[in-house]
Amino acid sequence: MKRLKEAQIAVVGLGLMGGSLAGALRGRCRSVIGVARRAETVKIARARGLIDRGAIDLERGVYQADLVVLATPVRVILHQLTEIGTFLSTGCLLMDLGSTKTQIVAQMEQLPDHIQPLGGHPMCGKNVSGIAAADPALYQSCAFVLTPLARTSEAAMGLARAMVEAIGAHPLLLNSRRHDRLAATTSHLPYLLACALVGAMRKETAADSAARVVAASGFHDTSRLAASDVTMMLDILSTNREAVLKAMAICEAQLHNLAHLVQSGDEERLRATLTDIQKYRRELY
Amino acid sequence: MKRLKEAQIAVVGLGLMGGSLAGALRGRCRSVIGVARRAETVKIARARGLIDRGAIDLERGVYQADLVVLATPVRVILHQLTEIGTFLSTGCLLMDLGSTKTQIVAQMEQLPDHIQPLGGHPMCGKNVSGIAAADPALYQSCAFVLTPLARTSEAAMGLARAMVEAIGAHPLLLNSRRHDRLAATTSHLPYLLACALVGAMRKETAADSAARVVAASGFHDTSRLAASDVTMMLDILSTNREAVLKAMAICEAQLHNLAHLVQSGDEERLRATLTDIQKYRRELY
Repeated sequence: MKRLKEAQIAVVGLGLMGGSLAGALRGRCRSVIGVARRAETVKIARARGLIDRGAIDLERGVYQADLVVLATPVRVILHQLTEIGTFLSTGCLLMDLGSTKTQIVAQMEQLPDHIQPLGGHPMCGKNVSGIAAADPALYQSCAFVLTPLARTSEAAMGLARAMVEAIGAHPLLLNSRRHDRLAATTSHLPYLLACALVGAMRKETAADSAARVVAASGFHDTSRLAASDVTMMLDILSTNREAVLKAMAICEAQLHNLAHLVQSGDEERLRATLTDIQKYRRELY
Repeated sequence: MKRLKEAQIAVVGLGLMGGSLAGALRGRCRSVIGVARRAETVKIARARGLIDRGAIDLERGVYQADLVVLATPVRVILHQLTEIGTFLSTGCLLMDLGSTKTQIVAQMEQLPDHIQPLGGHPMCGKNVSGIAAADPALYQSCAFVLTPLARTSEAAMGLARAMVEAIGAHPLLLNSRRHDRLAATTSHLPYLLACALVGAMRKETAADSAARVVAASGFHDTSRLAASDVTMMLDILSTNREAVLKAMAICEAQLHNLAHLVQSGDEERLRATLTDIQKYRRELY
């Protein structure tokens, strides 16, 4: 396994996450190759100085790489994992940035033995997507979850850690199921709550032009995730269905209990419940 | 009815909203008197230059005022409305900043005839509360809902508009029921959703120290309102119970539908639903 400084790195997918990663790595390794479907995307990445070279063919982009990072939506990653194995040179570290990890790690188990696979998920992002929004500082100070397989070697882990630290992030080792369960509650559930809120607003107030004026910063923040990229979220929901449904059921029970307390007028219990929640939230941040 | 420039204005309650209002009005009217329960609060408001004079006795604070603004929590306003009538001089404009309006406006109907009552609710705020957080720029560019009563005169409305414009806000006339219905969906429901989310996170992940690390900006924003002041929120929920429960029921149905679509694996319908919601949210901001 080469050291980061000597490694040729291929980033597959030059959207917000991949473009930002490429830009953050450029100059910290031998070279960064950007792989995208569209030639126009590669052109923009080069013009913005995010990559050293580009490719629109997966095999050509990755065949000499020491480290390959798949920065595409989850189900595109799952597909790429079925074809990339034969393209990679011996000892190549193959990582991904997918938002769910259990299915990806299971698919990685099927890769040929000469490849070192490792799941990854950086806990950062932006409201916007695409190469235009790419920012080499995106990963600064963020937690970068790594989900190793039993077959992932110490040397491969060392190179991955060096990459995570080079972009200013902090590695956090988790197994893939634990990651997916936590992400269901702290990320996929908030998305669905934001969607339910926007759906409720549309249903209850769409005919009232004053609704948009009365909606203040609280509505803005609580509903923000409803504007997320739908294709990305469908990939996430379909590959983490069980954990998402469990988190939704727990949240529905919480909401139901709150509605019951509001309706009953049992103010002492409502106050105690809301105060516990407030205290927990204030301790988090 | 005096013009704003000649008016003596009393602001009752010197927290975030009252302290900011006093500071924004000072210099734009004859004088601003700040009324608070605690002498210490009055002292800070004077030291910060937010008021011309202070009082800790409601009667002494308001008896000479041309315009009185109650900037206390909703149920304190409801109580103050039962005792303030006899303290006010003839023609005095009595406003409030309460977050729910139907019960306050109903209580205002009971005021003696020599008073001009008018409900108000500025659509702005901050995560923090208290005089220390007061900021005369708080109202800049915000919508300021006014809920007039049948008895509110044109002259009183004129003074109220002048006050709203003097602090940089935009007046929006609504009847109190319409305000409360919109606020239930766009403000009180988001608070309860944030609470349910934090409650679900605590229940599902409290034992896992990685949960706080995995929770990224999406969780932060969606859960922000759960840190709101509980006493203020209890006042709001208890004085807008019917509209809040209706908004919760509509949202629960939305959430239930989303869970059903996730579970069924009917991706076409899930995509269509999430895309509609995404489009609506993106049009809002």
